[in-house]
Amino acid sequence: MKIRAMVASLLSIGALVTSINVSANEPIQPIKAAKVANADVVELGKMLFFDPRLSKSGFISCNSCHNLSMGGTDNIPTSIGHKWQQGPINAPTVLNASMNLAQFWDGRAKDLKEQAGGPIANPGEMASTHKVAVEVLQSIPQYRAHFAKAFGSDQVDIDRVTTAIAAFEETLVTPGSRFDKWLEGDKKALNAQEVEGYELFKSSGCAGCHNGPAVGGALYQKFGVHHPYKTASKAEGRKGVTGKDTDLNVFKVPTLRNIELTYPYFHDGAAATLEDAVKTMGKIQLDRDFNKKEIDSIVAFLKTLTGDQPDIKLPVLPPSNNNTPRPVPF
Amino acid sequence: MKIRAMVASLLSIGALVTSINVSANEPIQPIKAAKVANADVVELGKMLFFDPRLSKSGFISCNSCHNLSMGGTDNIPTSIGHKWQQGPINAPTVLNASMNLAQFWDGRAKDLKEQAGGPIANPGEMASTHKVAVEVLQSIPQYRAHFAKAFGSDQVDIDRVTTAIAAFEETLVTPGSRFDKWLEGDKKALNAQEVEGYELFKSSGCAGCHNGPAVGGALYQKFGVHHPYKTASKAEGRKGVTGKDTDLNVFKVPTLRNIELTYPYFHDGAAATLEDAVKTMGKIQLDRDFNKKEIDSIVAFLKTLTGDQPDIKLPVLPPSNNNTPRPVPF
Repeated sequence: MKIRAMVASLLSIGALVTSINVSANEPIQPIKAAKVANADVVELGKMLFFDPRLSKSGFISCNSCHNLSMGGTDNIPTSIGHKWQQGPINAPTVLNASMNLAQFWDGRAKDLKEQAGGPIANPGEMASTHKVAVEVLQSIPQYRAHFAKAFGSDQVDIDRVTTAIAAFEETLVTPGSRFDKWLEGDKKALNAQEVEGYELFKSSGCAGCHNGPAVGGALYQKFGVHHPYKTASKAEGRKGVTGKDTDLNVFKVPTLRNIELTYPYFHDGAAATLEDAVKTMGKIQLDRDFNKKEIDSIVAFLKTLTGDQPDIKLPVLPPSNNNTPRPVPF
Repeated sequence: MKIRAMVASLLSIGALVTSINVSANEPIQPIKAAKVANADVVELGKMLFFDPRLSKSGFISCNSCHNLSMGGTDNIPTSIGHKWQQGPINAPTVLNASMNLAQFWDGRAKDLKEQAGGPIANPGEMASTHKVAVEVLQSIPQYRAHFAKAFGSDQVDIDRVTTAIAAFEETLVTPGSRFDKWLEGDKKALNAQEVEGYELFKSSGCAGCHNGPAVGGALYQKFGVHHPYKTASKAEGRKGVTGKDTDLNVFKVPTLRNIELTYPYFHDGAAATLEDAVKTMGKIQLDRDFNKKEIDSIVAFLKTLTGDQPDIKLPVLPPSNNNTPRPVPF
């Protein structure tokens, strides 16, 4: 028995070492399951994420544009906002967003908490105000009870609202992709074309920006390093935040995790397919004309980055009552 | 042992008789849990119910206006359709809708299956066509696999689409309300005011139309029996279906199950609160001016009709691919 235990112990150390080695040699690391620090805050955050009463119309929730049935995005080039306004930019996925160095394409919010307050009060998105959103929640005793459970008192304020939404969003990670299994030593998890695609992804320079556990999200980069990107979009990227001309068209490198689910691509949503996106990226960022075989293998690799999607039980939201400010949809 | 078993058996017969007696003497019967005939059809129907690709924009799903987080409604007076068009009528709840004698306020669809096809192709709602909706689903192998599992072959057509959506909707029943517990013999489930409200609901005539397991949904009735209902709504009710002048302003009596969750009220959504709704109904339907105490007790009773909300795991939708027709949001 003792010998068997020792062997088992040695084997598991062996597996660990292999796993560490594999990851250490690769620019991409596996995604780890989310740790939940406070389940009550997360549960409250989930309710808020799904509650359209945070919008002026009562129709748009966080989940409208970061739809957890669809890779945490809306799968349209640019989002639909209050009164069907056309948004200026493609909605980034909320999945694994906690790993980004900052939020929004231009990084103007330092973290998920700061981000969460943005769309609620953006006249082109949810078009409410923090004041009204808080009044709505404050008027509902069942919500106040959730705030009390989560934060120790039933006070509702925008800081707590965005803290809770961010805490929920931090749980939206997607471990378990075939690529992660391969990274962790299961060499049968990828086929030859997918491995070839990954090798090309590294050797041609894609992994220079798209790296780390999120395969992106860790740095800013000019979009159009070798050739300018042609777009009708007016988004200026980091320049809009820093004011510097050198930051024109510099965007946060997006995560490639779950990229098969988060079409269309680029900040303007102009690339409808992964093939289009890879071709354009090769040309403008790497000055390289990938041929069809190369594109297909990189796309095959990219499709291995789809992880286990978050397991979400739809929240049942407490009803408004006679004291709750009503939405203004029209 | 034998005697104990006989006693147990007699006791359970006793409980059954009590339960039957209670229900038999009342105009309202408890809601029974849904029976699922084919879990694969229901699961497919759930995916379709949550899939905004059934709309032209890719933004509106069945769940947008029949939100299962919010009592199966959108909680706004009239719904928001494609390009933010203002709908002509208040979205009826999908909860317990299988118990309605027909669907829509004017009963123009004979059942849930017929109803489900309506909004998809209605230019003011989801604004797609059955042809495009089917093409979208047909293009996605994972969807075809679900159709094969549900129906025995991977053919996608609108008949199967609406069959599946209806099968899912048939599971959306809400047993377990406090009122049902009371009906079933738990006399502590309601307080004195709630019982008083129920007695008044019966004695004043409300239960003449709002009866059966769904507390409504079983017949058509003129809205404005004693006094005309004043509204800006152009909805004609049954007249729009039958063409008969006598059917002007005749609507399906809505279910009162979960009524606390399905505000605002009436076909035009003009009653913001239950108190408003009860007052108006008393006046125009019963020629009765309920006083505040009476209104409060009826409202207290109505709030006991909220049942267990369906336990929904958010579906993960299979992604579109290069062959999938793209949404046209703008």
